[in-house]
This record gives sequence, structure tokens and C-alpha cells, in this order.
Amino acid sequence: MKKLINEPSAVVAEALLGIEAAHPDLRIDHDNKIIYRGDTPRTGKVGIISGGGSGHEPLHGGFVGLGMLDAACAGEVFTSPVPDQMLAATRTVDSGAGVLHVVKNYTGDVMNFEMAAELAAADTGVSVESIVTNDDVAVQDSTWTAGRRGVGVTVLVEKIAGAAAEQGRSLKEVADLAATVNAEGRSMGLALTSCTVPLAGRPTFELGEDEMELGVGIHGEPGRKRVALAPAAQIAAMLVEPILADLPFRRGDTVLAFVNGLGGTPQIELYLMYNEVNKILAGHGLQVARSLVGSYITSLDMAGTSVTLLRLTDELLGLWDAPVRTPALRWGA
Amino acid sequence: MKKLINEPSAVVAEALLGIEAAHPDLRIDHDNKIIYRGDTPRTGKVGIISGGGSGHEPLHGGFVGLGMLDAACAGEVFTSPVPDQMLAATRTVDSGAGVLHVVKNYTGDVMNFEMAAELAAADTGVSVESIVTNDDVAVQDSTWTAGRRGVGVTVLVEKIAGAAAEQGRSLKEVADLAATVNAEGRSMGLALTSCTVPLAGRPTFELGEDEMELGVGIHGEPGRKRVALAPAAQIAAMLVEPILADLPFRRGDTVLAFVNGLGGTPQIELYLMYNEVNKILAGHGLQVARSLVGSYITSLDMAGTSVTLLRLTDELLGLWDAPVRTPALRWGA
Repeated sequence: MKKLINEPSAVVAEALLGIEAAHPDLRIDHDNKIIYRGDTPRTGKVGIISGGGSGHEPLHGGFVGLGMLDAACAGEVFTSPVPDQMLAATRTVDSGAGVLHVVKNYTGDVMNFEMAAELAAADTGVSVESIVTNDDVAVQDSTWTAGRRGVGVTVLVEKIAGAAAEQGRSLKEVADLAATVNAEGRSMGLALTSCTVPLAGRPTFELGEDEMELGVGIHGEPGRKRVALAPAAQIAAMLVEPILADLPFRRGDTVLAFVNGLGGTPQIELYLMYNEVNKILAGHGLQVARSLVGSYITSLDMAGTSVTLLRLTDELLGLWDAPVRTPALRWGA
Repeated sequence: MKKLINEPSAVVAEALLGIEAAHPDLRIDHDNKIIYRGDTPRTGKVGIISGGGSGHEPLHGGFVGLGMLDAACAGEVFTSPVPDQMLAATRTVDSGAGVLHVVKNYTGDVMNFEMAAELAAADTGVSVESIVTNDDVAVQDSTWTAGRRGVGVTVLVEKIAGAAAEQGRSLKEVADLAATVNAEGRSMGLALTSCTVPLAGRPTFELGEDEMELGVGIHGEPGRKRVALAPAAQIAAMLVEPILADLPFRRGDTVLAFVNGLGGTPQIELYLMYNEVNKILAGHGLQVARSLVGSYITSLDMAGTSVTLLRLTDELLGLWDAPVRTPALRWGA
């Protein structure tokens, strides 16, 4: 295992120390492994928290800041945070306007966020709403998930709900918007290589030199099938066509197109992939109003990519464009 | 070779199509493989161009925009652009105030930028100044380089010179600032794995499962030595101590600390590395005023990291903080 780490069991705790040192706007609760905005809570603003296993950086801690998340709970690598973490974050970010939990659809995350929401309500009377993202069209059930997995759309939910909260909208409105983004978004991923979990010390799955995993999950869960290595143009079609068919997206729809790297893939390949995705979308008569190209929801060192499409309305577009200032996404502020 | 590409010979041209589609603020000259600001030239502003072989993204094209570069010339992977590209870019960005060439110290780049500067002067009378970056303390000469290689400090030169140009400073002032940044900056890198050049189709060098290349260059050029795999804390010391000794940096100096990923390294490892670097700097009594953590000057899919330190003055700090709006660096605008 070749990684820039010390003890495998200390990776998350030590990375949090680095985030704290690099980003003076953020506050870290090291005991609870929570990354907060330094200026939270703000009276009247709905709080938004997320969290999940580590290893998907910049998701979620890199999205804490103005216009996005108020806090992110970091679990150990590929392991859900515990309810106490989510409860502590919920309490801290609540200003009285309530808190939205953004939860990717993995069994552990869903269960623990539910428990935290119940504890928050019983204990301190904080109003909590939850959005469970489930945008991955690859498979219906998978390792650790009943139903579809929550993947790339989570980034878009956090941005758009975050902008709505910043505008002072109510908890119900923010939660409804988050649900809309999830409902209008679809994703699919592909791995060229496995990732390696530090504590495991070896690749999560074996993949031949001439094979790819189509529909892979962000922890290396099996996808739809093993396929032979293919050119980027064919890979783009393998990812985009199932996404388009699923919503379905229709000619004339306006979309946000998000080409994501899985952690070990360089930017030159992502831009090349984006060109292929863009050509397919144009061929289907879709209008790409906004794009995002980069590694925003990753699987440690996995080489590969995922594509997420979000059908946009003027309202969603305006919220996407609204100011954001986080370590990983920043514009207009 | 597992890459998200089509024909290996078309990687750069196709990635440029993706950049064009993803970034409507930029303009691409596909014949000359140049990425321009859409709003260049601006009367009275010194133009700044850079360029070099592709495969180091986001360097240089991802740094084109307000407050940084006016244009970037993309060579083929790890291959210098030709003088005609640099000449075309120089002509286009010149508003009459002259043009700064930011050149990494590789023999081909230096020769071709020199020729372009001569052609520009002879042909159209454009005033050109050049800064050749040579911040890599690892080795004195290397494959393709006489003297020290230009690496991470190039990013900082482009940001700080770009801010000075945006303020309307003269060509001489902008060039002097660029030279100061280069003089006050030092870098060193380490590879956990080789990169693979698409046209070669196999790793540039062989590295055992228990080996690292200390002092590696950004094309996989040999470094100081092969060393055994080590924990991040030791790796940080191997990189930071030679940097500190070289300038030398002294107790009480204020620095910008830049921990860079080489393309295949995930963010969680970079933040962990940053924590180690930060501890060493604190131990030497250095004040870290600003940091940059991420993959900004890469070597295709190479796993590894580099560290760059820049000794700051108030002026350099102010220019670093000045507004920038490019695909890869964005704040304050």
C-alpha cells in the first residue's frame, strides 16, 4: 500500500488537523470529528449538516462554508459517523430555524442520521428535516444500501440547499428544494482501478488490466458489470445513456453536467471526458447551462469517473450561481 | 494503460475541447492550442502568458483568467509548445504595455520562449520580459534541464505577477515581482508511483512496491535517490528540511506553504501531509500566513506530493490575496 499516511488508524484524525491548519475560517471539533463554519449558527438561518464515511474528500468537509454546509461529520474511512456526532453538529448549527440533514443513501448513514434526528427532537426540540440522496442509476440494491446509492447529486444538493438557507428560507422550503434536486438528478460511475482502504492495506476489489467496473459505487461496491477497457467516447456513452433514460431527460431540457473524478484520475482526463459527455448531451438536444468538472466526490485513490446530470429550472440555476465560499467550491463571495 | 482517453495522440486536443465547453469565460485557439481569457487584452494591462508540456493540469490553462494568466500555450504531453504558439499568444494578449513570459526551467521551454520573444520584438515590437522559474532544490541538473527545474513556485509566480498586472503595474515591475517570487520560493517532490504518458503506454519509470523516488521531477525525471516507503511524517521531513536549508528560511520568517498533489493522490492524503509540513514549520519558528493544499501542478496520474515554500513580504501577501477568477484558483472576485 503506497499512501501518504502514518498509522492507518489515524488517517482521519490527522487529515482533520491538516484541514484545521489550512482553513482558518473553519472550526474542528476533534473529539467528535466535526468540521464547522467558524461563523455558525447565524440567527434565523436554517442549519445544514451532512456527513458520512471519510475517503470521499472534498465531500463533505470541503463543502463547509458560506452558501453550503454549516457542518460535516466525518466517520472513519468508508464508515458512517455515529449518531452522537450528528447530534452534536445539529445542536451547534441550530439557530432556532431548524436543521436539514443531507444523507447519502447507505444503510448505516440513514440509520444513524435518523437516530440523531430523534435525539435532537426529544432532547432539545430542534426541528430536523432530512433529505436522503439516491441518484445512482447503476443498481437497485448494493453492498450497504437498500435502494439506490446516493452519490454525485449530493454535492449539488448541498450547494443548492445551502444557497436557499443563506437566503433565509424556511426549513420546509430548504428541505423541499433539496428533495427536488435529488429527484431531478441522476448519476453513474465507472472504475478503472480499485481503491485501497488504509486499514485494509490492499485493493478493495480485483480488476484485470483490461477491465473496468461499470456502475461502481463510491466504496468500490460492485456495479452493473465488468466490461472491457474502452475509449473515453464509449465510456461516456455507457454512463450518460442510462442516466438520460432513467429520469428521463428530454430534448430541450436544461441541465447541469457534472463530470467527477474518483480520486486517482488527473484533470486532463476529466476534461477529455467532459468533452465526450457534452457531445452526447448535444446530440440529445439538451442545453448544458452549467458544468462542474473535477474531483468532488471521491473514493480514496480510485481511478475512474462519474457523471451526474441535474435538470435545471431558473430557480435551481439561480441558487447554483449564488455565492459560495468553501475550501472546494468558491465563487461570487 | 488505464486512462479515460481515446487516441493517445489526441489527448491534448480533446481535453482543450472539454475546457472550452466547461469554461465559457475562456477562448481556445485550437490550431495553436492556446487558452485565452475571453476579455484579453485590456488596454494598459501587462499581458502574462505561460505554457509548457501538457499533463501538469491545472497548470497552466487552469490559471487563465482575471488576476492570473492572460493565455497559456499547451504543448503535447510533456513536450514544449513551439515558438509559433508563444508568438501568437504574445501578440494576442499585448495591449501595448508589454508581455511577461512565465517559463519553467526546462531546456525546450526556455529555448522556445526565447525564440518567441525575439520574434515578437522583431516582428511587432512587443516588449517581452521573461521569468524562468527554477525552484526545485532536489537536483542541480536533470533530464531536460540545465540547472534547477521549475516546479511549484510557478503557480505562485503566476498568481502574484497576475495580481500585479491587474493593478496596472509596468512590465518591469511585474517582471521584478515574478523574479522575487522565484528567488524567495523553494520546492521538492516525491513520487509513490510513476506516471504513464499516453503515447508511451507504460510507466515512465519502474518503482518497487516498497520504494519512493525522492526529489522526483514533474515528468518522472530521477530525483535524489530511491528511498524505502516511509510514514508521512518522515516524508514531510525529507521534503521540508532540504527546502528550509536551501534559501535558507529563518526563524520568524513568514511563509506561504503549498502542499501539492501530483495527480493520482487523493485530497485526504494531502491534508494529512499538510499537517505534517505545518508541524515542521512551526518547529522551525516559521509563521505560515497562507496555505494552498491541492493538486495544482501535476504529473498526469503520478501518486505523490510536492512541497513549496515561499517567503512572504506584506506586498507579496497582498498580491496573493488579491482577487483571482480562474478555473483552478478563485477568490475575492
